[in-house]
Amino acid sequence: MSSQDQPSRQGTFGTGAGRSALDTALAYHRAWTSHDFDRAMTYIAEDIVCQAPSGRLEGAAAFRGFMGPFVQTVTGSSLIAAFGDDEKAVVMYDTATVPVKDAPGAECVTVRGGKITHMRIVFDRLPFEEARRAAGTG
Amino acid sequence: MSSQDQPSRQGTFGTGAGRSALDTALAYHRAWTSHDFDRAMTYIAEDIVCQAPSGRLEGAAAFRGFMGPFVQTVTGSSLIAAFGDDEKAVVMYDTATVPVKDAPGAECVTVRGGKITHMRIVFDRLPFEEARRAAGTG
Repeated sequence: MSSQDQPSRQGTFGTGAGRSALDTALAYHRAWTSHDFDRAMTYIAEDIVCQAPSGRLEGAAAFRGFMGPFVQTVTGSSLIAAFGDDEKAVVMYDTATVPVKDAPGAECVTVRGGKITHMRIVFDRLPFEEARRAAGTG
Repeated sequence: MSSQDQPSRQGTFGTGAGRSALDTALAYHRAWTSHDFDRAMTYIAEDIVCQAPSGRLEGAAAFRGFMGPFVQTVTGSSLIAAFGDDEKAVVMYDTATVPVKDAPGAECVTVRGGKITHMRIVFDRLPFEEARRAAGTG
């Protein structure tokens, strides 16, 4: 593991109400990258607003519909960096997925009361689009 | 400006050798988003390794060839979040560009001696590809 692969973490780890945004972001990250998506969803606010590359998603059900199918394709992941403060955190990670072997992503989350109320996700849709095209399903 | 658009910054701002990775990341960001790309390049190490969506770039000249043309198309930008420590920082931002109106990106940089030695950039290439295709040049 090179130094670039060592995740950086900053912030105070705690429990309950004292939990920082970074704690929540990392708990969410650990849950979905270990395929426990139901647990991941416990960190998502009912009224989450998610700005994804494909557009704006409103509410936990829409978020589940976007993120759930992706999570099922994940075969591996590693944390690149995670930083945050009490209200906001940024997590960058690599994933390996069935259609795309190297699919990094970055999330900026706003957390209130231990739940993610806003998420901005950045990732490259192009290799997913190319994989769909190659499979004749896109 | 909504609360989601308020940039978060964390880290100690300093000068010279005491400069944190976040200071350098933000100085680089301010320079290229204000179209002063030559100044931006002063924060880039000669032997930078950049992992971009299109692949791995080695050295400042290759990095300039990748980032320079993009910077020329930028018509606006805003910082979404910026966090870091002494060695590493993550910056997420929105840009408006000539071909793509909403083009967010995220960078994780490693800084040594005030220069960015490693950068991982995540952004969505798909709308750029679609714009090229629509223009008949892709």
